Order: sequence, then structure tokens, then C-alpha cells
Amino acid sequence: MDNERLSLDVLLDIIHGKKVIELRELCDTYEPIDVAEVADEISDAADLLFIFKTVKSDFTAELFAYLNAPQQQKLINLFTDKQLMELIQNSYTDDIVDFLMDMPANLVSRILDISDKNMRADINNLLNYKEGTAGSIMTTECVILPNNFTVADALARIRKVGRDKETITTSFIVDEKRLLVGTVGIDDLIYAEPEVKVIDIMNPDVITTTVTADQEAVAQAFKRYDLNVMPVLNDDKRIIGIVTIDDVMDVIDQEASEDILKMAAIAPLEDSYTNSSAVTLAKKSIPWLLVLMVLGAFGSIILNRFEHAFEQVVILSAFIPVLMDTGGNAGNQSSTLVTRGIALNEIEKKDFGHVIFKELRVALLVGLGVAAFSFLWIFFEIGTGILVYNTGSAPFSGPWFIAISKIAGLVSMTLFCAILISKLVGGALPLLAVVLKKDPAVMSSPFVTTIVDVSSLLIYFFLSSFVFQLF
Amino acid sequence: MDNERLSLDVLLDIIHGKKVIELRELCDTYEPIDVAEVADEISDAADLLFIFKTVKSDFTAELFAYLNAPQQQKLINLFTDKQLMELIQNSYTDDIVDFLMDMPANLVSRILDISDKNMRADINNLLNYKEGTAGSIMTTECVILPNNFTVADALARIRKVGRDKETITTSFIVDEKRLLVGTVGIDDLIYAEPEVKVIDIMNPDVITTTVTADQEAVAQAFKRYDLNVMPVLNDDKRIIGIVTIDDVMDVIDQEASEDILKMAAIAPLEDSYTNSSAVTLAKKSIPWLLVLMVLGAFGSIILNRFEHAFEQVVILSAFIPVLMDTGGNAGNQSSTLVTRGIALNEIEKKDFGHVIFKELRVALLVGLGVAAFSFLWIFFEIGTGILVYNTGSAPFSGPWFIAISKIAGLVSMTLFCAILISKLVGGALPLLAVVLKKDPAVMSSPFVTTIVDVSSLLIYFFLSSFVFQLF
Repeated sequence: MDNERLSLDVLLDIIHGKKVIELRELCDTYEPIDVAEVADEISDAADLLFIFKTVKSDFTAELFAYLNAPQQQKLINLFTDKQLMELIQNSYTDDIVDFLMDMPANLVSRILDISDKNMRADINNLLNYKEGTAGSIMTTECVILPNNFTVADALARIRKVGRDKETITTSFIVDEKRLLVGTVGIDDLIYAEPEVKVIDIMNPDVITTTVTADQEAVAQAFKRYDLNVMPVLNDDKRIIGIVTIDDVMDVIDQEASEDILKMAAIAPLEDSYTNSSAVTLAKKSIPWLLVLMVLGAFGSIILNRFEHAFEQVVILSAFIPVLMDTGGNAGNQSSTLVTRGIALNEIEKKDFGHVIFKELRVALLVGLGVAAFSFLWIFFEIGTGILVYNTGSAPFSGPWFIAISKIAGLVSMTLFCAILISKLVGGALPLLAVVLKKDPAVMSSPFVTTIVDVSSLLIYFFLSSFVFQLF
Repeated sequence: MDNERLSLDVLLDIIHGKKVIELRELCDTYEPIDVAEVADEISDAADLLFIFKTVKSDFTAELFAYLNAPQQQKLINLFTDKQLMELIQNSYTDDIVDFLMDMPANLVSRILDISDKNMRADINNLLNYKEGTAGSIMTTECVILPNNFTVADALARIRKVGRDKETITTSFIVDEKRLLVGTVGIDDLIYAEPEVKVIDIMNPDVITTTVTADQEAVAQAFKRYDLNVMPVLNDDKRIIGIVTIDDVMDVIDQEASEDILKMAAIAPLEDSYTNSSAVTLAKKSIPWLLVLMVLGAFGSIILNRFEHAFEQVVILSAFIPVLMDTGGNAGNQSSTLVTRGIALNEIEKKDFGHVIFKELRVALLVGLGVAAFSFLWIFFEIGTGILVYNTGSAPFSGPWFIAISKIAGLVSMTLFCAILISKLVGGALPLLAVVLKKDPAVMSSPFVTTIVDVSSLLIYFFLSSFVFQLF
């Protein structure tokens, strides 16, 4: 974390000077992702190829995985079959599949042609798992031990095959039918005597998942049970791969991003902001705006029907933004809290009653606080002339502070009711979504705004009809 | 993941029947967190104590860490000094510190009294690290190897002390002054010959952090470099502990929650939604609502000053909700995308120009799309009588479709401008926050709403003065 950032100039200088030793030293100092970040900006593919020809292949395999798709494609076009084969042999299948997804078909088939039979089968399988499933984030490289192995056998096997596996921290023990019977940690193997059978020290209660399971559920289990690796089983309960924690970290970020975007009325992006084009971003942004605009018609209808109220008490219109924004914000607070609680598994269906009761108490407190403040604030606004009290066709009589109290009281009462409704709706909608098996993040904010707008405006006009005897 | 949930009835039945064997079997089947979830609901402390007296102590140490604070307190009050000492010896220091934070002072001193000298020093140190720092999430239990060790020495040391350490996957190699010189993975120790020196196979380029570093920066480094563990150094560059990936996962969730709440105008919670009282939630919700209400005054002032426009063209008021909501939503989309991009390190200060240019293009596309739709939509609304076109004191002349075109054109133009402004402001504010070293999540949504409200209303009245020759 203390490393200075690598600069493109330094890297290009080394490459153009063919400084082989400096380049190797540089790759000892920096991590593959640091070099990839800079190498993404190299425009001449020959310069890029020089790195791959010079540096040792386990570094370049990782470097390749971190490069962006255009750079990867340039390289593959330049690689000889031998170089390509070496790259594939040094990469984990999940990394290969990740980059194949972004490659044109002819490159994919070239890579599949070069791979050996087993690797080809693995890649083909992984390519077929739907995005968002455990299968799509798993890798096939794990240490599998027969259940008749001793600790000595196990350590010998790990010494032989471990280097090609993504992790050796946990090994998976299978019976003759390749059914998973338990796991054994590398620590247990080290602590045990060599002649002990692995089945005698294994953990028989393994938390597993299936290829088609939702990656979010997998991430939840990693967090709940502090896992580092989780075996993935097929329908026959045979182990076909593992999910490792580094892939789960990406899932956690991805799922949080998805929720955040949905709450802000944006359809989830398939890629990062930086890698999404303006057209893509616009496509993701427009649909919800249109839906909300159509829903906004309810607010318009109410204002339209109560136009005569403005004619009689003109100042009423001035408070519409405050009412709509405050109600919307209050509802948004509740829906966000509840949606996040659901995402983190803190709130479940059975907590419906608790949540609503809690939101009710919060709403009463917040409503009272905000209403009291707004009463004083409106006095201040009108008193100082920030707002002009123009009564329109229904002039007020009596002392000025009674007239201001009327409008300030009306707005405060409306705010109190609006906050009550919006917090209850904001708390209930995400839970309702769970009950209906819909996504709480989508259901919450956009609908809350609409419901809150309509109800605040209705309350406002209803109360003003009493206060000003309008109708 | 396939396990059925444990039920309170089953657990209490076993406890009340003093079924020792069943209880031990149950604790073999379920993970400590599963049992803790149910044990949190046990009301009689004696029942709780029965579990701790019956089940083996490495399970109960973990179980204890997962219990909620009131249950932990009840138990400690019942524990003899011997039981308490056993619990502490079987717990990791970071877990002890976590529960001590929630305990009353007398219990904390009782636990410190019982701990041995080293443990006491560790706990005291950890208790002093500020929340949100690397120090506050680190643990002191790691394998440290002198730099003159051979692989055989290292494995012998790990066999001896490894069980008390939080991880043996990575060992840390220090020189005579206890300065960190490198790390060695358990895999490298297993692959190497016994007589090889650990310094010859170690990784000398270690990514480290300091006790005072921000936990978010630590989490970023874990993600960037796919780490499982990171050593924490003090000011003298001596290793004083490690951060492990399970604690980092919690940080990632915590930081995402914080950002999400800030974007929804809620002050960050210290605890989960479920564990926060209604009063706490209200306190976290009110401040921003009041700030936004005061900022909302700008919108009120504009409506107040343009009241006469409503008198002349009454239907104008009907579109205020749509204008405000659509502008707010569009701006919110942009600020959310950019804020999230910053949080995930995809967007940095230097990308300012790119982001603004991208938001400009997105805004043009979204603005055109929404404006076109709204033009047709308003025709539909007025044509079908959803909205009543009441012209007030300025009656229109000429064919009806020209009159509707005027108002529809006015609203669409305003929407186009409002989206342009709100997306640019929404994209720029979080970046501005980064430049000013403020938190992008706080700066974004609330301010965007205010700026967008004011500018949409100003544009609306400005354009309507042209269209209807009002002034």
C-alpha cells in the first residue's frame, strides 16, 4: 500500500530500451494488477508483447487476466500457438472464462482448439453457466482426495498437484462415487500424524452450494460462516468446482452496486460506469424516469383539480416543493434502511410487524420534530419577508400573527401527516416486495415518491379546506 | 446451506431434558452462528449456561462471540473465574475486544484481571484503537518466524503454536529487530525441502498497513490484490497484528451501508437497523430533513414570486410535481452512479473531465427521450381530460391543438433543460466533494435535489413568460 504508482513513461522507457533485467525487477516489485493498469494504456501491441516474452509466465498469466478486453485481444492475435498454450496452462479456468466472454467467436474457438481435452471441457462447461449463479464464479482447480488416503498421502498429493490449484488451504474428500464426504484443512494435515486417515480428521459437515444457486446466497453464506472456500456440487451431489473468497468479494460489491442503482431508479449496469457508454447509461436511465413521470400524473391531477385553492390563498403554492421534498426524503430514509436491512439479512419476512411498529414510532418522533421546526421556520420566512403573504381573493382579517399561524399550522400539520404516511409506506413497501418475492430495491424509492406526493398533496388541500374554509 | 434452521423449541427441549449427547451432536451439526441465533432468544440464563458447561470449549468460544450483548453479560455474571478464563483462552483477542466494547466497566475489569499479562496488554491496546482504523479490526494472533529459520523449523513452530493463531495460511518473517522482512505461504513451506531457509522462499514485497490506517483503504487493498491476510505495522515498522479477510468482508458491507444511508440523507448508524432504537433512528433522520427543508426555501421563494403566473395560466401549477420529481430523479441517477464509481475506485479526481463529458452526452440523450415522451403524454393527459386545461385570466385563442402544444412544448423544454442541469450537477457534485476532500455520498443526493428544484422552477417560469407573454 506504500508503493508509488507505476508510470507509463517508466514502463515504456524500459520496454523501448529492451531492458530485460529492469523489467523483471519491476514485475517483482509491483503486483500484476498494478502493471496491468498501466499496460492498458500501451498503444503499440508489440510493446505489450515484449512484456509477455520477457517476464516469467505465472506473472504474465495474472497480468493478462487484469488487462482490458481490447488489449487482451491484441495480444492473442500476436501470440503464437505455443505462447497461447503456455498462457492457458498458467491461468485458472475461471479467469480464462472471464476473458473469453469478451472475445470474438474466432478467438474463442482458437483457444478451445489449443486447450487439452480436459481444459476444453471445463471451459465449455463454465461458459454455459448463467451469469449470477455459483457456476459462473466457480473454478475447477481444487485439491480432491480419495477417502482412503492417509495424511501422508494427502500431503504428497498436495505437493504434486497443489501448484496448479487455486487454493490448497482446504482439500475435498470424496468417496468412490466422487460424492463429497468432507473437507480437511491444510492446518489439520500439518498437525496430524502421517499415518492417520484423512477421514478421521476431516470435517464431515460441509456447507455446500449448487451450480445454479444465486451468487448472492453464496456470498451471504461466506459472510455468515466466515468461509474462505465453498465446494460447488452438481445435481448428483458430486463436487465439480469451488468458489473462492476473492470471487465472493467481487460479488458483494456487485450486489451492493446493483441495489444502490436500483434504489436510484437506474437499471443495473452489466459493466462499470467507466466501461459503460453514454448510450448504455441513457438506456438504463430512461425507463424508470418515464414510469415515474406517468405515475407523477396523479400529483398533477390533484394540483389541477385544486387550482381554485391557489386562486383564493395564493401562498399555498409556495409550500408545495417543501411538502413534496420532505415527504419524499422521509419515505426514502425508511425504505433505504429497510431495503439495506433485508439485503444484509438483518430483516426477514417475519419481522414485518416489528419494522412497521418501529417505523411508526420513528415517524411520530421525526414528524413532531420536523413539524415544530417548520412552524417556526415559516413564521421566520414570512416575518422576514423571504416569503410574501399574498392572500389572493380571500383576504385575511384579524391580527397578522393569527394569519401566519394559520398557514404555518397548516403546513406543519401536513408535514406531520406526510412524514407519518411516507415512513410507514417506505418501511412497508420493501417488506411487501419480499412477501411478493419481488426485489425490494426496485419496489422502494420510486413508488414511495409517487405515493408520498399524492398523499401529501391530498392532505394539504384537505386540511387547507378546513383552515381557510375554501370549499 | 441446505441445513434446516434450528428451532428454539428443539434446543430448549434438549436443555431442559439435560440431554448431553443430543446437545453435543447438535453442536456438531450446526455452526456456532446458527446456535447463537436461537440461543439469543433463551430467557433463562441457567439454560444458556448449560450449553456452555456441556459443549466443548472451542465451539462455545465461537458461540459466545456471536451472542448478543445482553446474553453475553448474563453469562459472564454466572461464569466462575475458571470458566471465564477458559473462554478467554479459547477466544481470539479481536473477538474479546468486540464484546468488551459493549460490557459495563466492572465486567471489563473482571475480564482484564483474569487474563494473563500478555493477553491483558493485547486487549488494552486493541481497546484503544479508534473505530474505523486498521487497528480496530486487527487481531494479534499470527505466526511470526525469525529470519534464520529453515522450512523444517517453520513447520515445527506452526505445529506448536498454529492452533492458537487466527490463520496459518501465511507466516510473517521478521529480523532481529522484529522488523517485517517478508511472508511465506503454507503452500511454499509444504513444497520446499526441509533444510531450505525461509528467507530464500519468502515473498519480500509485502503489502502492509498501519494501525491508524482507514479500514476502507485496507478493504480496497484486499480487493485489489486478492489478499487473505495483511500485516499491520506500528510506527517503527514492527508487525503488531494482522487483518484477516473475514473482518474485511464486514468492513465492505459496513462501508456500503454507510454510503447508501448517506445518499438517502440519513446519518450513518453505529449498529444494525434491528439493534437501533426508534429514538436513535429518529435522531439520525431529522438533521438532514431540517437542512433540506431550509434549502427548500429557495424553491418556495421562486413559487411565491411567480404566483401571478398561476393566476394567468392556472394549468402551469399542475406540472410542478412532474418537473421537480423528474429533475430530482435524473440528478439522483447521475450522482449515485458517480458516487458508487468513486467508492469502488473506478472514478478518480483525474477523471473529472471524462465524467462531465459523459454525463453531458447521457443528459442530452435522456433529455431528448424524456422530453419527446412528455410532449405526447401531456397531449394525452389533456386530450383525454385527465388534466383540465383551465386558462385562468389569460384565455387562449386559436385552435385547441396549438394551445395544448404550447403548454406541452413548454413542459417538455423545461424537462429537457432540467435533466441537462440535474445530470451535470449530479455528476459534478460528488467529484467536487472528492476535490474538496469531503465525502461524496453526503454531498450528492440532498444538494442535487435542492439545486435541481430551484433551477427547474426558474427555467419553467422563464420559459412560460415567453410562451404565454406573461410579464
